[in-house]
Amino acid sequence: MTSRLLTNIGELLTNDSSRVDETPVGRVLDAAIVVDEERVLWVGRGADAPAADEYYDARGAAVVPGFVDSHTHLIFAGERSGEFEARMAGERYDGGGIANTVAATRAASDEQLREQSNARLAALRAGGVTTVEVKSGYALDVDGEARLVRLAKEITAEVTFLGAHVVPREFAADRDGYVALVAGEMMTRCASAKWTDVFCDVGAFDVDEARTVLEAGRANGHSLRLHANQIADIGAVALAVETDCASVDHCTYLSDPDVERLAGSDTVATLLPGAEFSTRSPYPSGRRLLDAGVKVALATDCNPGTSYVTSMSFVIALAVREMGLSVDEALWAATRGGAAALRREDIGHLEVGARCDLVILNAPRVAHLAYRPGSSLIREVWRSESGEH
Amino acid sequence: MTSRLLTNIGELLTNDSSRVDETPVGRVLDAAIVVDEERVLWVGRGADAPAADEYYDARGAAVVPGFVDSHTHLIFAGERSGEFEARMAGERYDGGGIANTVAATRAASDEQLREQSNARLAALRAGGVTTVEVKSGYALDVDGEARLVRLAKEITAEVTFLGAHVVPREFAADRDGYVALVAGEMMTRCASAKWTDVFCDVGAFDVDEARTVLEAGRANGHSLRLHANQIADIGAVALAVETDCASVDHCTYLSDPDVERLAGSDTVATLLPGAEFSTRSPYPSGRRLLDAGVKVALATDCNPGTSYVTSMSFVIALAVREMGLSVDEALWAATRGGAAALRREDIGHLEVGARCDLVILNAPRVAHLAYRPGSSLIREVWRSESGEH
Repeated sequence: MTSRLLTNIGELLTNDSSRVDETPVGRVLDAAIVVDEERVLWVGRGADAPAADEYYDARGAAVVPGFVDSHTHLIFAGERSGEFEARMAGERYDGGGIANTVAATRAASDEQLREQSNARLAALRAGGVTTVEVKSGYALDVDGEARLVRLAKEITAEVTFLGAHVVPREFAADRDGYVALVAGEMMTRCASAKWTDVFCDVGAFDVDEARTVLEAGRANGHSLRLHANQIADIGAVALAVETDCASVDHCTYLSDPDVERLAGSDTVATLLPGAEFSTRSPYPSGRRLLDAGVKVALATDCNPGTSYVTSMSFVIALAVREMGLSVDEALWAATRGGAAALRREDIGHLEVGARCDLVILNAPRVAHLAYRPGSSLIREVWRSESGEH
Repeated sequence: MTSRLLTNIGELLTNDSSRVDETPVGRVLDAAIVVDEERVLWVGRGADAPAADEYYDARGAAVVPGFVDSHTHLIFAGERSGEFEARMAGERYDGGGIANTVAATRAASDEQLREQSNARLAALRAGGVTTVEVKSGYALDVDGEARLVRLAKEITAEVTFLGAHVVPREFAADRDGYVALVAGEMMTRCASAKWTDVFCDVGAFDVDEARTVLEAGRANGHSLRLHANQIADIGAVALAVETDCASVDHCTYLSDPDVERLAGSDTVATLLPGAEFSTRSPYPSGRRLLDAGVKVALATDCNPGTSYVTSMSFVIALAVREMGLSVDEALWAATRGGAAALRREDIGHLEVGARCDLVILNAPRVAHLAYRPGSSLIREVWRSESGEH
């Protein structure tokens, strides 16, 4: 192991709540950090830094934990920018466009899917994402979903089985048959995923259908997460809390009782402002959630239909502009919040012992991530070489 | 001269209104273009392309004219992200923060200003900007403004004298004295600029003061442009039309008579959605302007107080999401619209004889510029080597 000292950091956010200079993000000014290839070894003031094998000069830049993008649909084929243009011209999005992606994804070879997914992954990584969750859900048949889970595992350990994305056309007259297939044979074939997810909303699956799939996922050894309340409130949040989902994602439309439920639970509310941006939907208030004590995460929701976003900086800027989060809160949500949404303790912060996933910004202050929207301010990304991400 | 054929273009936008496949942006599918080091030599279908000295394969990518960023305050020193954070937390922006930038800019050396401006210019260029306008206005004294004009001329031919940005603190008790200085000695010392601009708004200069400065600018050989209606409507648009300003910039708050005035004039309405984003102000409707027949441009307004934006792609995405423009309209506004705002016929389009300023996108369709917000989709930028930009 080689120890590396990164010094002359203008502003370091560790997300260590015990190391608070100003705010609950563990801010250290004039900071330094020592890492090896895998873990954080030391954090503190630059003046107190220990010796190390190698030295790096941050030249006054801000340093933050690597972004944890806890919600993506990264693996897909096809072209849907025309649908986006139509929607911007006034048509209402009803989810029907997913069928286009399903057809194109089914038709694509493994190599074609790898090439396209890797380009998106490269964009996420260049933008500071060091851990990414990837869902299946664009095949919607047994072999195809198993293939997507296999391809997703080439990218990340955080693989989610989303056979219950929508009911495919061939089951339009037999919803129960499709739910049984997802909860049965498809689930078994996708057992190597880590998570089960359901799109529980108008136009997708109702609460009872979602419960069936989530229970099958749990029986199969998966942890649970849920797409909820993007289009309407049909009771998905109560289901997520009841089944101890790690995260309930979208939360565009939340009732007061739902906010209370989330505040009293271990379920993270994952906000996906790229989806509201790209569907011209109203942004939910992150402020309301934080003020109620709900744990909030931010993610890209990278997908071809409603949020073709690969920049966590853009997501952070939207959360500050549109959702009432401070920059520090948005940064926390994009790092430790994402980690909580994946129930991971080893990422999303830079305390001693954590993975050494960090981002050196092209800026002296973390606030520039929102202050300079639309730009790439990522100078360098360090990522742990240890184990699975 | 060496002729270069760029072929296998999936979608080419020329902004040639006589070459219309679908829309008034001169769309050509399966296209090719031939340029030399300075100009466009030929445009058409790939199958019809003539021979050339060199061949480049666009691999199906979309190609658009280089972006024309017709409104920036690129040269400044200092750090104001804390002011941005305060504003996002609920404080109202009143323009007072400019004094901070003035103090820092006055204190900076030429080399410091060059280094910082060149970093911003590099970000703009990497984002596809091939022509940029640069304003003075952060010195507000005779020697300082002359220095900023000199430094701006190192960057671009489109240099704007903005001594009338705000009244500096030392003239707070003598507004008339400052207006006389700007219109007199300062104007003379900044004669080598191409444009005179005034911030004609609440907290800056009223219509009579602005008229005095604009008339002095014209007498000095400058063409005219105006900051107007960002904070309030104090009659700036009527002044702009009356004095034949090339562009009236911001237009956040416009009356119906102002829209009619613009529609009947040669004055372009330049929209700066980065400013509305970064000040959490309501976006003006670009749709309303286009429907009335007003010519619209889009620009970054890159500045440290209200729009630290260096991505024209981000500006285009905001214009589509928030201002009612179609992607094609936003693209036109960011290219030929910007050229019109600078009264330039040689840029902002790719007709034969135009400068060969073009952008090859990392995308098969131009719509991706808004469909994939927050990302850099600029694969390559070609820029004419001829004369001044």
